[in-house]
Amino acid sequence: MSQPSKLVLLAILFSATTFYGQMQEEPTDPKATEFYEPVPPKVTPGINGAAPSDAIVLFDGSNFDQWISATDSTAVQWHLNGDGSMTVKDKTGNIQTKKNFGSVQLHIEWRSPAEVQRDGQNRANSGVFLQGLYEVQVLDNNDNDTYVNGQVGSIYKQSVPLAMASVPSGEWNVYDIIFHAPEFSKGGNIVKPATITVLHNGVLIQDHFEIEGPSEYIGWPTYVPHGKAPLILQDHRDNSRVSYRNIWVRELD
Amino acid sequence: MSQPSKLVLLAILFSATTFYGQMQEEPTDPKATEFYEPVPPKVTPGINGAAPSDAIVLFDGSNFDQWISATDSTAVQWHLNGDGSMTVKDKTGNIQTKKNFGSVQLHIEWRSPAEVQRDGQNRANSGVFLQGLYEVQVLDNNDNDTYVNGQVGSIYKQSVPLAMASVPSGEWNVYDIIFHAPEFSKGGNIVKPATITVLHNGVLIQDHFEIEGPSEYIGWPTYVPHGKAPLILQDHRDNSRVSYRNIWVRELD
Amino acid sequence: MSQPSKLVLLAILFSATTFYGQMQEEPTDPKATEFYEPVPPKVTPGINGAAPSDAIVLFDGSNFDQWISATDSTAVQWHLNGDGSMTVKDKTGNIQTKKNFGSVQLHIEWRSPAEVQRDGQNRANSGVFLQGLYEVQVLDNNDNDTYVNGQVGSIYKQSVPLAMASVPSGEWNVYDIIFHAPEFSKGGNIVKPATITVLHNGVLIQDHFEIEGPSEYIGWPTYVPHGKAPLILQDHRDNSRVSYRNIWVRELD
Amino acid sequence: MSQPSKLVLLAILFSATTFYGQMQEEPTDPKATEFYEPVPPKVTPGINGAAPSDAIVLFDGSNFDQWISATDSTAVQWHLNGDGSMTVKDKTGNIQTKKNFGSVQLHIEWRSPAEVQRDGQNRANSGVFLQGLYEVQVLDNNDNDTYVNGQVGSIYKQSVPLAMASVPSGEWNVYDIIFHAPEFSKGGNIVKPATITVLHNGVLIQDHFEIEGPSEYIGWPTYVPHGKAPLILQDHRDNSRVSYRNIWVRELD
Repeated sequence: MSQPSKLVLLAILFSATTFYGQMQEEPTDPKATEFYEPVPPKVTPGINGAAPSDAIVLFDGSNFDQWISATDSTAVQWHLNGDGSMTVKDKTGNIQTKKNFGSVQLHIEWRSPAEVQRDGQNRANSGVFLQGLYEVQVLDNNDNDTYVNGQVGSIYKQSVPLAMASVPSGEWNVYDIIFHAPEFSKGGNIVKPATITVLHNGVLIQDHFEIEGPSEYIGWPTYVPHGKAPLILQDHRDNSRVSYRNIWVRELD
Repeated sequence: MSQPSKLVLLAILFSATTFYGQMQEEPTDPKATEFYEPVPPKVTPGINGAAPSDAIVLFDGSNFDQWISATDSTAVQWHLNGDGSMTVKDKTGNIQTKKNFGSVQLHIEWRSPAEVQRDGQNRANSGVFLQGLYEVQVLDNNDNDTYVNGQVGSIYKQSVPLAMASVPSGEWNVYDIIFHAPEFSKGGNIVKPATITVLHNGVLIQDHFEIEGPSEYIGWPTYVPHGKAPLILQDHRDNSRVSYRNIWVRELD
Repeated sequence: MSQPSKLVLLAILFSATTFYGQMQEEPTDPKATEFYEPVPPKVTPGINGAAPSDAIVLFDGSNFDQWISATDSTAVQWHLNGDGSMTVKDKTGNIQTKKNFGSVQLHIEWRSPAEVQRDGQNRANSGVFLQGLYEVQVLDNNDNDTYVNGQVGSIYKQSVPLAMASVPSGEWNVYDIIFHAPEFSKGGNIVKPATITVLHNGVLIQDHFEIEGPSEYIGWPTYVPHGKAPLILQDHRDNSRVSYRNIWVRELD
Repeated sequence: MSQPSKLVLLAILFSATTFYGQMQEEPTDPKATEFYEPVPPKVTPGINGAAPSDAIVLFDGSNFDQWISATDSTAVQWHLNGDGSMTVKDKTGNIQTKKNFGSVQLHIEWRSPAEVQRDGQNRANSGVFLQGLYEVQVLDNNDNDTYVNGQVGSIYKQSVPLAMASVPSGEWNVYDIIFHAPEFSKGGNIVKPATITVLHNGVLIQDHFEIEGPSEYIGWPTYVPHGKAPLILQDHRDNSRVSYRNIWVRELD
């Protein structure tokens, strides 16, 4: 072709036939695009990060009832501080929820000690592992640089956060997370990667990132098929003294 | 085929050739997957919805400097209340930002009057139009049902909210919105629809919804190509008396 | 995180819970993956490009019964050669099928004159327009260069062919085409672009190309929503003398 | 929202600002959309299925130089018939190309014996395994039904052919195949499944099917990461007596 132009062609087509008449006709009544069912549930929101009425409260400071040791399923040995928070007890191992989760909205607050110790990855390091496998890094990066794909708010070794939005050491940080679980074929292939959005103290730091597989310290991430799985909080085994409080989750599936 | 099985085939392939040797070798040194550049910006977060240090504050209650009439580009005639908020002045028209935006994180607070008037879509109706075209519905739905794809928190006539999470009439609601602008081909075709995530008072109500086109009262949405565009707030022209406060935006592009 | 590794984590998860047990169990009986319905139709293939038993024969050389003028819907004025072929009659206009098509497998043969005239786009130029809008270029490029996105076998001004596979001027070329019609939303947005695969004399020259919109001589392609539409053959209006024969189509929708 | 309509909004936006002016301006000169580099290669096509000039001829009937036993990499023991064809020698095992391939256009011709023996999957069964793993079924289904996802032209146990387009037993069939190799992440996840298009005697029977993983007799397909790999032809080990001829391939990567 070099001519006629598309406009000419369209004119030709219209003149010769009415094939565009096959398209669905657009409604002219506003009611035609108004629907009444199903009605979404009413939820009473929390104030300033408190749990909404439909959330599962995983930790409100009073006990470890929703948690077990991730090492041997025994009782959690971390510190219950009595002020609404818990603190990692060094070398007692990770802890995990008794309940398994798929896709969730997760609210969790954490604090690194005001009195800093050591540098880089060894300063107040912990982690929030969605489904026990996909880590949002917890770290005190205040005046403490490290590799950027391992800094606070990173999807560990996969996605650098869009911003470093921590409060000063010793103050409480908030993570608001929207996580969608990965989907696998019957044969175990990954067909839909997990996605994650994170607000760190109200600042968007992970923006619907497609997770590449379980978080790996060495080498590349590789998906292994799984179903619902517990949330894990990490004991980094180097006296991290990270604290957590006000943990709740809303199931999205 | 009915046999041999894949495992036998794989064994055959391995024995006869080394073609799997072409895969990239996995690193065994943790440092191989650690990166130091570029360093993400440091942002001082706000407290309880206050603007982070890198946000553009669109309204803090003191003036309408960032806004003009969407009808005729003249000065805004809405009420500046003196308590940090503004209120729609009936039939003065929509208002829009002077600045144009693409993809954004948007924080906006709104309130419907404690003294309710009328029913359905006529009770305290307004709207937040991203890029002037894509509406997150603002409405007082407390004991006031309407079509669910037009209720509070809906992407108007496109996406029912996952939950109804309003506070009582007369109290302040918060929308935290992550919006990605649509992308168009040079020829004007939509190649990547806009997406939107909305937290209503901290409750996820829109979860990375793919917007179908500009919000339409009648008929179906159809994308029209555009670039960056202003944020618009709606005067519904029926004495809605909706108020807004604490509006800030972080640009994502 | 910096440790423990994923393998340790997986071991932890397995020891503490059985959440991987939620995966669907794989069958061990080969019959579990064997299906008997629906049975695909039996088709008698043609020999050397002849029409299969389920094809719609659009032109076998005997008449123009399946065709009309694309200009005014009157009878086709092109030359019926009596040897199984037709030849463009200059300045009588494009011709189109009476029947409208969506997705198709199309077989069509064409020939440029042995006696060449003129250069570039003006040497034996014609075109096969799927749905009247999406053109596979027909051109004599033997010792005759032109812009590569307009050469023989191109999707005109959109996709350069992978190879130039023409036979000498005066001999018959074959196009075997697999075309999938574009899909539009109710509101008219393109939601699935058209795709096209072309074998030119048995050589793959277009490999599942996503068409960007109707072929345009000037400017960029822009989709306009439409339903099924006729096949069009082009009169380039410069004495192209291109001939066609053995045209058949199998509907894929 | 319930009003104003989008058209009103657009008018408002246009009157108040010129934000649509940010779109890229469309060219008015046809030369702006004409490109001259890179020039695609010239290929001399074959006649009636003969190899194009740029093809790798894998078998022309004269020898097994391009092949080895897939069992032990020794010389091929199948029958070299002297008429341009080869025939499976029962229980000597599969054969594979010495060369490894990624994405290819493959032409291959096959024949089941005129004198039929046995039924179902045991009548003249063989297979063409792209990359040694992904099988296009070869079977004599003339008056011989079997499970449809295992009949001639199926992607074995994954995709039923669109049609049964075989010639009578004892005559030569042609498969023209367009195959794209799967793509894997560094960590071994499947990120882009293999795709396959098959013309059987000129009839489209597989239409850009997304392969689910290696062909499996029992259970579900699961991708295992690999690089380029040989083409395999199957000895079904039940005296299938299937013959092959005229095998050539064009590399697409």
